[in-house]
Amino acid sequence: MSNQEGRAPVLGDASADDCSCLSIAPLGEDESVELARLFKALGDPVRLRLLSMIATRGGGEVCVCELTPAFDLSQPTISHHLKLLREAGLIAAERRGTWVYYRVLPEATDRLAAVLARPEASEGGRK
Amino acid sequence: MSNQEGRAPVLGDASADDCSCLSIAPLGEDESVELARLFKALGDPVRLRLLSMIATRGGGEVCVCELTPAFDLSQPTISHHLKLLREAGLIAAERRGTWVYYRVLPEATDRLAAVLARPEASEGGRK
Repeated sequence: MSNQEGRAPVLGDASADDCSCLSIAPLGEDESVELARLFKALGDPVRLRLLSMIATRGGGEVCVCELTPAFDLSQPTISHHLKLLREAGLIAAERRGTWVYYRVLPEATDRLAAVLARPEASEGGRK
Repeated sequence: MSNQEGRAPVLGDASADDCSCLSIAPLGEDESVELARLFKALGDPVRLRLLSMIATRGGGEVCVCELTPAFDLSQPTISHHLKLLREAGLIAAERRGTWVYYRVLPEATDRLAAVLARPEASEGGRK
C-alpha cells in the first residue's frame, strides 16, 4: 500500500447523493476488502478510544504524549495501535522534534458511516 | 454474554437527540469494548458481503442456501461467518426445517453509524 504523508486513499466520495449503503445493494468484493480493513482497524477498544480522543479535538492535533497517560499500556503499545489507525487511513501523523502529533482524517469515518446508514432511518423509519 | 433468541443486547438507544459520536466526547472503556466487538465483526470482507446481502432484503429473510453460492467457500465456512455476525448482534437466525434463515438487526448498524457520524458533516461542513 502506498501512503503519501501517512494518508491512505479515501474510499470514493461520500457525497449526499451517492448512497453506498450496504442495505441498498450488495457490496462488491473489492469494496468489501477495503471497507473490512477499516472496520478491522476499529475492532479494538484501545484503538477506538484513541481515535475518539483524537477526534474530539476536531481538526486539531494531539501529541502522543497526551494520549499515553490515559491507558495502562506502554508507549510502544499505544504507538503500535496508532500506527494501525494511521495505516488504515483513519488518522495522520506528523513528527515534530521528540513527539509525534496525530489528527483525524474524517473522510474515512464518513465513508464508513455512509456505508452503515439506512436511507429509511434518516427519514424517521427507525424501528 | 447472554443472548436471547440469538440476539445480542442493543448498545443503548440511537435516538436523534442522543448523539454518541466519537468526535463529541471520548468513548469510555466499557462502551469501547462493546463497540469494538461490533466493528471487529465487520472487519472481514466475507462477513461484510454476507451482511450486505442480507440487509438488501430489508426486513426480509434470506436462506443460507441463497448466500453460499455467491462465495468460493464451503457452507461450514459461510455458516461460521454468519455465526460471528449473529453473536455480534448484527443479524438474527431462525432454523426452519433443513435451512437457517437470516435477517438483519438494524439497531446495531444504526448504533455504529451514529458513533461514526460527525454533527458538522450533516450540516454541510464536510471537508
